Amino acid sequence: MESLKKKILEEGRVLDGDILKIDSFLNHMIDVNLTLEIGKEFKRRFGGTIDKILTVEASGIGAAIATSMEYNNVPVLFAKKVKCSLMADEVYASKEHSYTRGVDYVLQVSKNYLKEGERVLIIDDFLANGEAINALVDICRQAKAEIVGAGAVVCKTYQPGEKRILDQGVKVEVLARVKSLENGKVEFE
Amino acid sequence: MESLKKKILEEGRVLDGDILKIDSFLNHMIDVNLTLEIGKEFKRRFGGTIDKILTVEASGIGAAIATSMEYNNVPVLFAKKVKCSLMADEVYASKEHSYTRGVDYVLQVSKNYLKEGERVLIIDDFLANGEAINALVDICRQAKAEIVGAGAVVCKTYQPGEKRILDQGVKVEVLARVKSLENGKVEFE
Repeated sequence: MESLKKKILEEGRVLDGDILKIDSFLNHMIDVNLTLEIGKEFKRRFGGTIDKILTVEASGIGAAIATSMEYNNVPVLFAKKVKCSLMADEVYASKEHSYTRGVDYVLQVSKNYLKEGERVLIIDDFLANGEAINALVDICRQAKAEIVGAGAVVCKTYQPGEKRILDQGVKVEVLARVKSLENGKVEFE
Repeated sequence: MESLKKKILEEGRVLDGDILKIDSFLNHMIDVNLTLEIGKEFKRRFGGTIDKILTVEASGIGAAIATSMEYNNVPVLFAKKVKCSLMADEVYASKEHSYTRGVDYVLQVSKNYLKEGERVLIIDDFLANGEAINALVDICRQAKAEIVGAGAVVCKTYQPGEKRILDQGVKVEVLARVKSLENGKVEFE
């Protein structure tokens, strides 16, 4: 997606620890024009029909809503990130390790809102080690929902996340494929 | 806003501790149709022009994006909720006490994204004690931004939040005014 890659080159900053910071339009401030384009692009790539979009708070919500708008405003369900899980009966839960923050989270989704047989599209902002999307896939499998695919706005393709999701038989679509952040410079595939 | 009140009556649940849980369309799953209506309603009430919308992760983001779409897709800035603040030079920070969770958060906004003189509309999901919106007002004042107003999707009008924000000279608009949750029953003004 060229407009996205252009924006990343213009405004992204590469920080120590192999971090691509895109706070100015995705992770802190949201560029709504670009977000609506992102929704259209996910629809173009996945097509078909879906029943629900599953994402995770907070940075995935914008892209998820924009994608929903291309699919007749299907509901957007965002998993909650909690430090520890009560493992209550009424939630599906799956562990995620955040490499950026160096902590484990548990992603939780209420069983009321994810049902067997529902066609679910997973949307998130970043795919690097695949921890968050992997947890969302796990949650869908627990619910026996049908996973239509997983879309990430940005993927660091030199990290294992994409393969990890693909290996589970889930279709993956990525809008900006970053192959290197070496020497503080963003390079796309 | 009648469609919102109808939805709250149909799907809201009143929990112990004076909590109105509206997870099925606002705080966990997002009803995108209703959210787009909420954006239109905030535009109708505040009117005029704005430069930016300020909200707080995660539940405010949907309504904030929908409102932005009514204002030519102005940027949406969401404050990050952190348990403790590093009080770094590059952020505006303000403390919020969460009565629901019984903890203090610090809301943080990067100084890069909120500037003197910008016309800012504050949007959030709930207004009860006013802690979150009060912190957002404080952050705008630190940045010397101009506060156009503060919009809340739901307000518990028997709690002090609305008056607290009004007393600071900020215009407040609320889409569903809850006057009581007594005996597990939602009553509107």
